[in-house]
Amino acid sequence: MPADIEPITDLSRIAIHSITTKKLLIETCCKRYAEMGFGGISVWDDAVDGAGAPRVAKIVEKAGLRVPALVRAGFFVSADHRKREASLKLNRKRIEQAKEIGAEMIVIVAGAEPGVPLAEARTQVAEGLAAIIPDADAAGVKLAIEPLHPMYAADRCCINRLADARTLCRELASPILGVAVDVYHTWWDPDLESEIAALGDDGRLFAFHVCDWKTDTKHLLLDRGLMGDGVIDLRGFRGMMERAGFGGMIEVEVFNEDYWAMDQDAYLELIRERVLACV
Amino acid sequence: MPADIEPITDLSRIAIHSITTKKLLIETCCKRYAEMGFGGISVWDDAVDGAGAPRVAKIVEKAGLRVPALVRAGFFVSADHRKREASLKLNRKRIEQAKEIGAEMIVIVAGAEPGVPLAEARTQVAEGLAAIIPDADAAGVKLAIEPLHPMYAADRCCINRLADARTLCRELASPILGVAVDVYHTWWDPDLESEIAALGDDGRLFAFHVCDWKTDTKHLLLDRGLMGDGVIDLRGFRGMMERAGFGGMIEVEVFNEDYWAMDQDAYLELIRERVLACV
Repeated sequence: MPADIEPITDLSRIAIHSITTKKLLIETCCKRYAEMGFGGISVWDDAVDGAGAPRVAKIVEKAGLRVPALVRAGFFVSADHRKREASLKLNRKRIEQAKEIGAEMIVIVAGAEPGVPLAEARTQVAEGLAAIIPDADAAGVKLAIEPLHPMYAADRCCINRLADARTLCRELASPILGVAVDVYHTWWDPDLESEIAALGDDGRLFAFHVCDWKTDTKHLLLDRGLMGDGVIDLRGFRGMMERAGFGGMIEVEVFNEDYWAMDQDAYLELIRERVLACV
Repeated sequence: MPADIEPITDLSRIAIHSITTKKLLIETCCKRYAEMGFGGISVWDDAVDGAGAPRVAKIVEKAGLRVPALVRAGFFVSADHRKREASLKLNRKRIEQAKEIGAEMIVIVAGAEPGVPLAEARTQVAEGLAAIIPDADAAGVKLAIEPLHPMYAADRCCINRLADARTLCRELASPILGVAVDVYHTWWDPDLESEIAALGDDGRLFAFHVCDWKTDTKHLLLDRGLMGDGVIDLRGFRGMMERAGFGGMIEVEVFNEDYWAMDQDAYLELIRERVLACV
């Protein structure tokens, strides 16, 4: 068994995804996260498009926050080649925005479309990534492929296992390409520890997203648990990441209608408690 | 690409799971399935417990239906050893019931319990199977491990990939142990075709369950699609099974509140249409 993992005491290692408190303006997110001692914010596309990249850049700089990621781009899959071309254009825009706001990476959700067979979809993802790697490289922005849970394979993301993301990284062989490991999507994987170790060996462990898997999940998308609400051994998971060499920020990314409806200051206090107690 | 697969014309290869029309009494299920030309019924535990195995045996015999499976047993996982022992007892009862009703196999859902780490849960499953194999062997009843979708890993089934079910079969090395391949649980697997082929080579392809994956799934358990409602290439899937040597019945297993609420005669007509059009 792994050695004991010490609890987190330094919140400067923690970043919050703006979607987690999506009813707050980006200014308020940054101010409150920084006041609470969190060290970073991962900025979602809606926030960047809403406020504009130059303004977001100023806001995060003023708050003194790191920006591990702009979330999200990718969505390379379609039966319609015009949509695939439009997705490349949007990805290039996201790369520019990421550079502008000082985000270290873009989180890549591969995409999927009902009617496009999975094997074909997976080929389209590889082609899409190959097309934007030069742009990301030129901008100095990393691309983090995030495998999503198999329950999203039909319509959201056809890359569903760490092993498949790792294979993509090896095939495309660019040092700016890596993997975002999200506990929600990967915790069930029997190969979890060995895949994380292999990604570490390859230098591909770009991001670590935390939330929790609830046993009474009511909605496939909008009922993620906050850390401690569910079944995932988050501290054990962090141990796997750290033993594999991961030293980046730990990003809190929760989509949950009930938490969005809460008083957001109380919610941020709860997030802090749960980070300290569970991660 | 695979050669074209001919549509099904002979409904005698089709069995319906009694849960699919769960509001009908078992007598009515058998009578209606047989009248429509379906060749078999897989009987769920509630139906056997309700009517009693001797009576179910008479009902299916009178209807002239084959019984590919008694569904379901397993559920080997618990932190409480008394619950694990109770599950072995229940599994042995199901084996006896399966023998009595002439079921060829029992479908095994491995089990899972929040709080039991997945690695430990998977060990408990192997131990549970090892404990009941002699009973199944003596009764002449096969055991079909059904990997369930990863979204059930927390609380229902810790065996989530065909590869893991195949590994269990190899480790336990009993010829009565095999795998039930359900399209709903496995369609997303990048290794689908190679795993099915490997199971065929090993003589482990015991069952083939069909339904569909809807992109607008509203409930993790009770919103499965009828064949044709969703994204799965069912005919292509059948081709993989048949090329791997599968010649058993094709079993229709749908849990869906909306279909349960329909007129069940109209629903059975729809099932027939969809089998002919989609599978």
